[in-house]
Amino acid sequence: MLIVKKFGGSSVANKERVFNVAKKIIKDYEAGHQVVVVLSAQGDTTDDLIEKAKEYNPKPSKREMDMLLTTGEQQSVALMAMALESLGYPAVSLNAFQVGINTTSVYSNSRLKRIDSERINAELDRKNIVVVAGFQGVNRFDDFTTLGRGGSDTTAVALAAALNADKCEIYTDVDGVYTADPRVVADAKKLEEITYDEMLELATLGAKVLHNRSVELAKKYNVDLVVRSSLNDTEGTVVKEECKMEKMLVSGVVADKNTARIAVVGLKDEPGKAFQLFSLMSKHNINVDIILQSIGRDGTKDISFTVAEDNVDEAVEIIQSKMDKLTAQRVEFAKDVCKVSIVGAGMQSNAGVATMMFEALYDAGINIHMISTSEIKITVLIEEKYAKEAVNVIHEAFKLGE
Amino acid sequence: MLIVKKFGGSSVANKERVFNVAKKIIKDYEAGHQVVVVLSAQGDTTDDLIEKAKEYNPKPSKREMDMLLTTGEQQSVALMAMALESLGYPAVSLNAFQVGINTTSVYSNSRLKRIDSERINAELDRKNIVVVAGFQGVNRFDDFTTLGRGGSDTTAVALAAALNADKCEIYTDVDGVYTADPRVVADAKKLEEITYDEMLELATLGAKVLHNRSVELAKKYNVDLVVRSSLNDTEGTVVKEECKMEKMLVSGVVADKNTARIAVVGLKDEPGKAFQLFSLMSKHNINVDIILQSIGRDGTKDISFTVAEDNVDEAVEIIQSKMDKLTAQRVEFAKDVCKVSIVGAGMQSNAGVATMMFEALYDAGINIHMISTSEIKITVLIEEKYAKEAVNVIHEAFKLGE
Repeated sequence: MLIVKKFGGSSVANKERVFNVAKKIIKDYEAGHQVVVVLSAQGDTTDDLIEKAKEYNPKPSKREMDMLLTTGEQQSVALMAMALESLGYPAVSLNAFQVGINTTSVYSNSRLKRIDSERINAELDRKNIVVVAGFQGVNRFDDFTTLGRGGSDTTAVALAAALNADKCEIYTDVDGVYTADPRVVADAKKLEEITYDEMLELATLGAKVLHNRSVELAKKYNVDLVVRSSLNDTEGTVVKEECKMEKMLVSGVVADKNTARIAVVGLKDEPGKAFQLFSLMSKHNINVDIILQSIGRDGTKDISFTVAEDNVDEAVEIIQSKMDKLTAQRVEFAKDVCKVSIVGAGMQSNAGVATMMFEALYDAGINIHMISTSEIKITVLIEEKYAKEAVNVIHEAFKLGE
Repeated sequence: MLIVKKFGGSSVANKERVFNVAKKIIKDYEAGHQVVVVLSAQGDTTDDLIEKAKEYNPKPSKREMDMLLTTGEQQSVALMAMALESLGYPAVSLNAFQVGINTTSVYSNSRLKRIDSERINAELDRKNIVVVAGFQGVNRFDDFTTLGRGGSDTTAVALAAALNADKCEIYTDVDGVYTADPRVVADAKKLEEITYDEMLELATLGAKVLHNRSVELAKKYNVDLVVRSSLNDTEGTVVKEECKMEKMLVSGVVADKNTARIAVVGLKDEPGKAFQLFSLMSKHNINVDIILQSIGRDGTKDISFTVAEDNVDEAVEIIQSKMDKLTAQRVEFAKDVCKVSIVGAGMQSNAGVATMMFEALYDAGINIHMISTSEIKITVLIEEKYAKEAVNVIHEAFKLGE
């Protein structure tokens, strides 16, 4: 069996952890498997390098930043190979040039185009454990690129696809994907399986277990992903195309506090106002999430929408500078709000899921400000102070802990 | 004009020094020259990485060590490019993969085979300052290699040759090549010019200004080298094929304390004994320098030779384990000895140089233990405590300070 195993920066932060990971790798190797390991830079290395760069140039070019940052993963893989060798196992570390991890031209947030399997296969044939630098690639100019946040997950999934691996394991600091955040819901249950689509909704909603692009890639190439803990040996959660077990109505409930609501009040009720407003937001790279439009008084209308809390000040400022053009009377915003969502592939064929969710919130006396739905997701916007209670009552209503 | 400029690790050890070096680079760029910069890793980076590696593996494989160490230069060049950009100058950093610095297969002490000029020339055509990682190469397995001690000097000279550069400047912490170590001889004089051959003898003898391999390479490809200080703007020393100025009898005098004498006493006076002894040394990679053979008593002979002081204990141990086979009676050694040498291309056509040297030492009451000569060098072995005095009286005898 060919297994791709990915470990993040905190899993290899120091010597002790590197050897801990080495033992997990060796276990598979000893069982007769071929093992390809993908690593991030150790601990805070990447942040430290970014900080150092800013000392030399407050606005370093992205090309040079990638040149600098990719050294972090290269150090990480070299040290892991040394650790494996010291335990008596043959290992070889490879960076993006050596593997042939080809990306688009853009720096700092590149996308994978093609991974060459020749070198890795040759090393596997030589019975080597292959340790690959995650997060990095090479573009058509023969320059280092990086894949952006969560890039090492993406490297691992792409390698699994390119090598036709039997399994791709993503090691994190949690045991797997839960029906809710275990720190919020006492009886949150670990899911044995989850579909790509559900995982994508959860990832977007802030479950922070897997990076979106890695899940998209896994879905595209049908790579069976396993999310599991680097700290213990419990079975993780399998992410796959279709779950064999009976479809659960709802797989999980998740709260995202990094959200804020903006209301543009008293816009002239004429065509094109929403378009003007949201093209303004997209021009400034501000992602808009839930949108609500309502008829106001005296031939006006109000448009409310949510953005990430980090963006709210900038968004309000932009709108205020264009009040005349937008024909708006005023802008309001609230940061003390929170999105709570339920995700479930089973939802598609079951009416009444939304009703159950709303009922649970109503029973708890929690007011819903906005609602948004997709085929496998229902999101509501509530006051932030109710976040924990909302997640708990919904978790209970759908009997997710059972 | 195309100029290759090389700066060592201490010249780029911190932000202040990096910007200091950046200004030197910009000066040439502003003067309309094309500039290629070769850098070592910052300060103690390489030593720190070696130490870190040993934590993970007391005997790391050389391949993985090179994979680790090459990140030092990559960080160095990325930061320099950022510094140049922050000052408003276009720069691009390149590692060995990107340039195409091809070496032999061996790790940790590789030799250069071929340097591709395409990428660098393309970057120069785009008016970029090109900052290249020194010390590193890529072998035919597509693996990183390193060039051993002084490797960045070698990179710089090889690049100058490959690019047909007009000048190759090696920046160090001294102003140039002196007639003697200025810390030892008060009136030591900086040389304006010196030949490759003289420089080679001086480098071998411990002048520590340039690494031997870089001088050999410069000689082979006839690259005009300039050795100068990174701390000030004084003109350095030009190293070239033939010096235009009137040939000086002697260019410099140098002492090397890292030397020890071994005497193997009472060998049977029959053929093959010297061969046996020195093949034993070479089998253990111990370099032998001056050799003296003398007839002993009762049909025996003695062989004395010098080795680097670091090697003497091992050498003695090896000989002692083979006393029977060598038919030797005993081994003696002395660490408190020192080689003093004079070097000069003019020596070849001038008799009496050796006599002048011996006379100066005789006048000072310094006893000579061994003598070795080449076409442009005379070396004597004396007691270490006389090193400073010997260098001074010889320096004076040849009027090198005038």
